[in-house]
Amino acid sequence: MVNTGDTAWILTSAALVLLMTPGLALFYGGMVRAKSVLNMMMMSFGALALISVLWVIYGYSIAFGNDVGAGLLGDPGEFFGLKGLMEDTTGEEGGLPAMAFVGFQAVFAIITVALISGAIADRAKFGSWMVFAGVWATIVYFPVAHWVFDFTLTDDDGTVTHTGGWIANNLAALDFAGGTAVHINAGAAGLALALVLGKRRGFGREAMRPHNLPLVMIGAGLLWFGWFGFNAGSALAANNTASVAWVNTLVATAAATLGWLLVEKIRDGHSTSLGAASGVVAGLVAITPACAAVSPIGAIITGVVAGVLCALAVGLKYRFGYDDSLDVVGVHLVGGLVGTIIIGFLATADAPAGVDGLFYGGGVDQLWRQVVGALAVLAFSFVLTLVIGFVIQKTIGFRITEEDEVTGIDNVVHAESGYDFASLGSSGSTAPLAGQARAEARSTEGVGA
Amino acid sequence: MVNTGDTAWILTSAALVLLMTPGLALFYGGMVRAKSVLNMMMMSFGALALISVLWVIYGYSIAFGNDVGAGLLGDPGEFFGLKGLMEDTTGEEGGLPAMAFVGFQAVFAIITVALISGAIADRAKFGSWMVFAGVWATIVYFPVAHWVFDFTLTDDDGTVTHTGGWIANNLAALDFAGGTAVHINAGAAGLALALVLGKRRGFGREAMRPHNLPLVMIGAGLLWFGWFGFNAGSALAANNTASVAWVNTLVATAAATLGWLLVEKIRDGHSTSLGAASGVVAGLVAITPACAAVSPIGAIITGVVAGVLCALAVGLKYRFGYDDSLDVVGVHLVGGLVGTIIIGFLATADAPAGVDGLFYGGGVDQLWRQVVGALAVLAFSFVLTLVIGFVIQKTIGFRITEEDEVTGIDNVVHAESGYDFASLGSSGSTAPLAGQARAEARSTEGVGA
Amino acid sequence: MVNTGDTAWILTSAALVLLMTPGLALFYGGMVRAKSVLNMMMMSFGALALISVLWVIYGYSIAFGNDVGAGLLGDPGEFFGLKGLMEDTTGEEGGLPAMAFVGFQAVFAIITVALISGAIADRAKFGSWMVFAGVWATIVYFPVAHWVFDFTLTDDDGTVTHTGGWIANNLAALDFAGGTAVHINAGAAGLALALVLGKRRGFGREAMRPHNLPLVMIGAGLLWFGWFGFNAGSALAANNTASVAWVNTLVATAAATLGWLLVEKIRDGHSTSLGAASGVVAGLVAITPACAAVSPIGAIITGVVAGVLCALAVGLKYRFGYDDSLDVVGVHLVGGLVGTIIIGFLATADAPAGVDGLFYGGGVDQLWRQVVGALAVLAFSFVLTLVIGFVIQKTIGFRITEEDEVTGIDNVVHAESGYDFASLGSSGSTAPLAGQARAEARSTEGVGA
Repeated sequence: MVNTGDTAWILTSAALVLLMTPGLALFYGGMVRAKSVLNMMMMSFGALALISVLWVIYGYSIAFGNDVGAGLLGDPGEFFGLKGLMEDTTGEEGGLPAMAFVGFQAVFAIITVALISGAIADRAKFGSWMVFAGVWATIVYFPVAHWVFDFTLTDDDGTVTHTGGWIANNLAALDFAGGTAVHINAGAAGLALALVLGKRRGFGREAMRPHNLPLVMIGAGLLWFGWFGFNAGSALAANNTASVAWVNTLVATAAATLGWLLVEKIRDGHSTSLGAASGVVAGLVAITPACAAVSPIGAIITGVVAGVLCALAVGLKYRFGYDDSLDVVGVHLVGGLVGTIIIGFLATADAPAGVDGLFYGGGVDQLWRQVVGALAVLAFSFVLTLVIGFVIQKTIGFRITEEDEVTGIDNVVHAESGYDFASLGSSGSTAPLAGQARAEARSTEGVGA
Repeated sequence: MVNTGDTAWILTSAALVLLMTPGLALFYGGMVRAKSVLNMMMMSFGALALISVLWVIYGYSIAFGNDVGAGLLGDPGEFFGLKGLMEDTTGEEGGLPAMAFVGFQAVFAIITVALISGAIADRAKFGSWMVFAGVWATIVYFPVAHWVFDFTLTDDDGTVTHTGGWIANNLAALDFAGGTAVHINAGAAGLALALVLGKRRGFGREAMRPHNLPLVMIGAGLLWFGWFGFNAGSALAANNTASVAWVNTLVATAAATLGWLLVEKIRDGHSTSLGAASGVVAGLVAITPACAAVSPIGAIITGVVAGVLCALAVGLKYRFGYDDSLDVVGVHLVGGLVGTIIIGFLATADAPAGVDGLFYGGGVDQLWRQVVGALAVLAFSFVLTLVIGFVIQKTIGFRITEEDEVTGIDNVVHAESGYDFASLGSSGSTAPLAGQARAEARSTEGVGA
Repeated sequence: MVNTGDTAWILTSAALVLLMTPGLALFYGGMVRAKSVLNMMMMSFGALALISVLWVIYGYSIAFGNDVGAGLLGDPGEFFGLKGLMEDTTGEEGGLPAMAFVGFQAVFAIITVALISGAIADRAKFGSWMVFAGVWATIVYFPVAHWVFDFTLTDDDGTVTHTGGWIANNLAALDFAGGTAVHINAGAAGLALALVLGKRRGFGREAMRPHNLPLVMIGAGLLWFGWFGFNAGSALAANNTASVAWVNTLVATAAATLGWLLVEKIRDGHSTSLGAASGVVAGLVAITPACAAVSPIGAIITGVVAGVLCALAVGLKYRFGYDDSLDVVGVHLVGGLVGTIIIGFLATADAPAGVDGLFYGGGVDQLWRQVVGALAVLAFSFVLTLVIGFVIQKTIGFRITEEDEVTGIDNVVHAESGYDFASLGSSGSTAPLAGQARAEARSTEGVGA
């Protein structure tokens, strides 16, 4: 019998996580120059479209099919085309329909791929991006999801009914909602891809100001909103664990935002809206693996550490000269490492995960598991992404021409431009208005009175 | 006793569907020229306000009151003002509070009316639109909702306790979430109204570029997000059916987006963001009636067919000369027909609806029911909308003057303009900035290092 | 044992209410001039970050700790750092995890603080705002939340296990979701702060047009969406009460929008999009305290009264000369008073709250309780806010210089500007486009055919 409350929460969470990809499109889209906004958004929407289809055909089966060896890969044939999963299999003891889980995990695959696009703003051929997205999901994400998210199951007699992946089961690293599988994974891939494609024309010399910061803020707001599904939904139930994860997700994000804004204030003399939006995402990333393992005070510490370190880390690209355009490395790789490793220190057995970290008397046992899990995903993703990227670069080409970059990728690749305010006259302000809305109507009224 | 899980899911779904109307306002608003964005959005918000009130007063009762004859109309008096529905009537066997269902169905009525406005962009008097919206909901939508969504109920003894509408019960056409009642209905009405109002000045000669494609993308994202409530919520429970509908809604939409982008790439040489956003909606429309009747693979096929056909169908308005400005016909009528009729071919008894279509050995039995249901709603809506439209046109007038169209409907009708960036100086770029945000601050830092 | 359905609904509702603060940032951000949009949004995001952290550390405990005297204050030590709340305490009779309630109430604290910022647009130092936010939450909001939302609990023997606040328990005023604690509270504080900071340069003389009305509409849409969590979530369960609150929230908001638009049409000759967005919020505010106490018809009346009165009240600032820039007083204080007091007239025992107001034969008993509750919160908030504001003004300063106001607060305080469309050429329209999207591509095609 279906547990309707758990199902309601997971279907809701899946919808929330789905929204994160359009949210990311806005977040990224607002940060680039106006001539690139559509291409930036299209990389997210394109990933959303393609990965959904691949997930249904074979992705779910690679990630959650029975292990075919050493915890590295699920059986691609077991659930090919989601076969057999439409039936209600919840049985007597109650539970979640298989399809709710399929949908919830689908949106994780999608957003992970979309995140990478931030590293290659303004300069990737759209078709090549789509090829990359499909190949990367297939040989990087689907296996890594198996490693991290696929738990071995046993029946009441202790017989193994399903064998999962090595990080979740053999290593037993804690990653509640995807610090390794999603953020370290995407961050390492972003770094590799930024190296493959090279720097944008003018990188480090010209200012490349975000063209629409309110759009960035809309994106950050939707990401935060959707992330409650990401983290609290990862309990796969509407229970106490989900509730703790919810509160930790709120407060770590808040603390990271304060941390980032303080770094800016101290370093630059100003706190910026871009900093606030970036701090939000840094906090969300860091608490993702840890949200069921730490206390709310631990979550605040996690957030502050992530906010401060990521605020500093986004400067590294200028020092080392890789054009990680929208800071996938600085925010997702660094934030993912912070959150994954800090579990080794801050985890407390009072939290739902029930494990003590170094600071709570648990020694280094959990810490080394976290480090190994993080590094394994980092290395795997970085190396394979380099290979995929170079193969695409050398075959169909990955980067647009320098001339096209100057003209603007929206125009050249999509034959569109993001905005056209021409019908309003210059800035919209010269149009003769019979009376302008609330403020103005009343202004007149008030002055006369 | 209330089933809290089902109630949680339906209240959530109702909120999701409510969000679709503001989402539609953005989707439509971004597609028109900058001088019309507010009027475009106001048609959605105006419908939202008016139809909500009518629904509470008599709409719900016409749609879901006991049938007053031949399955055509519910009793407007039975639930007038929602009387008697505040009490918890879920009884011993558990269920959904009546008011949760009232709210969920309210937002379907709203979005259906709002959808029509896309056919008459830039040129309708706001007051006349509001009159149209109220009349159309009353004599077209509320009855059609009764036909399609109001199921006849029997008690344990088989005694009929409530008699519903003819399409749901007598014809037994499958329409899980509103392919006929919502999309074919709105699409046919859009065609009729485009004919009544006539073409915009410059239609087919001047380019009428979308003025704000990021706004269109925000709208598309919110529509997709909200649509999970629309489709998976139509299970009226948080169960396996809802979960299957959820996954089908994801993958059909994804497939339609790929389909639309491929048509563009092949035909025009470019895939556009407007195409992606349109493909999203086409897929959502097509899977709406079918999401509980087909398998995930069937959903992919449904999506591809809808994406390709709708991408081709939006060109028809130039060929036949009706100014369906934002493609209500091309996307909602065509997409609704695709999704409603394809059930006759692709339905599989393995899916929750439990019916086999032609390709699964079910013969043409379901197919003809689908065609009859689709055509009945199409014809009813088209004819009545023509009549309502002409009566409004001939009495209070429906269309603004050509001069006002040139000036811009926002200015003339609402005394507002959408944007005013004047306080920033030209394009915001000449304002002297002490230091611009993350990118720039670090750019300087990085270069110096 | 956790009730999964209730938990699903409250976690969802909490996420919905969280989204209201970014939604408010957009709503407010679009209304100011382009040179102030980021600062406006930063006041909401800053409040979100800061209040979340304070809530976890001591805010929850002040609001929901055991009363320390006369119903005025909860014990700040009881749940300091949310200690003891990670454990599942739902016990045998089932219920909601404590942490779900903590999260749900956190977002109420956040939005209340953020609302105030609308009264001081364009002119507050960001650091001073943050100080204000923290102090105000601590000595105004957290106690008032205790007064209004903290109910005294007894066990099965009638022994009091937890003592709550005076308005909820001693006065027994009805405030389902925060008409007093949130809206009157924020509205009175907004008035006080507008007086402390004084008028903007040019107030009442220059037109200060909203710079981005689509942004206002996005905000209004997200607020409405999120408000279903605010109101229907306040049932703290997924039950009949939540369902009634949902429908009342829909229809009152709709009615208020119609009311506001009619006032504009009659008074100014035009209905505006700013009016629609404002009417939406006015209706949401007014139904907040009343949504479980009135019938759907009562909700329509509540909405119309609020829409009309608020539409008139927003003019008062010009008459009395306080620069409540974005109408926190006109919408939240007036709307909150309307909704709180109208319960005394329109409450019906048929509604979930089970109380009859004056018009339903209940006499004035409930009415005076509502008035006393409303005035108590109004006076407390107004006086304390004046004090806090003046202390900040006299110590670290609250207002930016007049020169900086002219330059623009985004530039001066945040070193950013909201938009930069320069890379598109003038208005984006002069960029040579190879072919523009759907409309244009087809336009050409159509014309040629």
